[in-house]
Amino acid sequence: MSPPSAAAESTTVWAELRHAEPSDVPFIRRMIYQMAEFERLTHLFSATDTSLLSTLFPSPPLPHFFSFTPLVLYLSFTSPPVPSSQTLSITQFSLSSPVVDPDEADFGSPLGDGRRIAGFVICFPNYSTFLAKPGLYIEDIFVREPWRRMGFGKFMLSSVAKKAAELGMGRVEWCVLDWNVNAIEFYKGMGAEVFQEWRICRLTGPSLEKYKDE
Amino acid sequence: MSPPSAAAESTTVWAELRHAEPSDVPFIRRMIYQMAEFERLTHLFSATDTSLLSTLFPSPPLPHFFSFTPLVLYLSFTSPPVPSSQTLSITQFSLSSPVVDPDEADFGSPLGDGRRIAGFVICFPNYSTFLAKPGLYIEDIFVREPWRRMGFGKFMLSSVAKKAAELGMGRVEWCVLDWNVNAIEFYKGMGAEVFQEWRICRLTGPSLEKYKDE
Repeated sequence: MSPPSAAAESTTVWAELRHAEPSDVPFIRRMIYQMAEFERLTHLFSATDTSLLSTLFPSPPLPHFFSFTPLVLYLSFTSPPVPSSQTLSITQFSLSSPVVDPDEADFGSPLGDGRRIAGFVICFPNYSTFLAKPGLYIEDIFVREPWRRMGFGKFMLSSVAKKAAELGMGRVEWCVLDWNVNAIEFYKGMGAEVFQEWRICRLTGPSLEKYKDE
Repeated sequence: MSPPSAAAESTTVWAELRHAEPSDVPFIRRMIYQMAEFERLTHLFSATDTSLLSTLFPSPPLPHFFSFTPLVLYLSFTSPPVPSSQTLSITQFSLSSPVVDPDEADFGSPLGDGRRIAGFVICFPNYSTFLAKPGLYIEDIFVREPWRRMGFGKFMLSSVAKKAAELGMGRVEWCVLDWNVNAIEFYKGMGAEVFQEWRICRLTGPSLEKYKDE
């Protein structure tokens, strides 16, 4: 007799990275807050659904990847998603065990179709004068805690990099905190160079406002 | 009898920061190369007039500061410039002594009006999810060598920061090399915070191209 097979059974999950819709904004806002918690930067968080909606979904809309571009990671558990014009990429994952997701109720698809939101990306075009080419800057790439270390981050970053390469862009860039050694190793494994010499400078708040009066 | 006054005489120069025209592209390309030399990064330089023209001046044109935005610093020596719709900012400088500019012939105004190109800025909008607001990212800010340490860099950065604040943007950001201590002190004096913890990650060249096939 063979042993019980339950432990060896894998769970199939389909992941779709798709361009966000206005109805995704409350999920994105919650994930931005979770990211701020992880980065110990909640004191800098002031986004609301209204401010995200007006800045990420301007009217008239701009073409994807030519301005601020939010993408959402949807997981399907019962059947593969049907690709739409909003789909950037779809792939299938086999998880070694079912995932316990304590925030399940907060991240169910607004369509009530049993899908789950597990991550997001926000990117926008940047420009390299040395290359005289646009690139893509990833402002945020985030996977919710229960879904980490399963390949979803790699799926999202690969999908965005593939699109940038197809668009003829010269670079894909993003930032990482120097103490986040897991992320740094992950990015290096994806082929990224991590620059040690550059420092970010910022004018914000009163330091920026004072220039209004100059 | 008073001493000869020549040494105390000041030279008046008017500086105009204005949106670049296609005819400014060859000057911008030369300055990008000078910047690459200063940053010891000429191996990364591949811009041509054609590639700069097609990427910085798309057709149809996009509104200033809503996409890649090149600005050029013009100096006038005989009379103040007449403001136009391309003008961002004009100010008057008193230099303590005349400036010897070895590249004078290469940087004369294409209009043949005796003006001189002394610097440039290239910026584009970025996005902060924490603020849910656009900002402005300065890709390059450059003053040609003979015109440094006279206040032109401050004039350009202040003009851009003022415009960003007026547009309701949340941040102005840029990068600096950690060994460029003069620049870091200058930026701090302008009110900027310099972040020590963030590192830039980049996929480019073959490391980016390989994602096309995924």
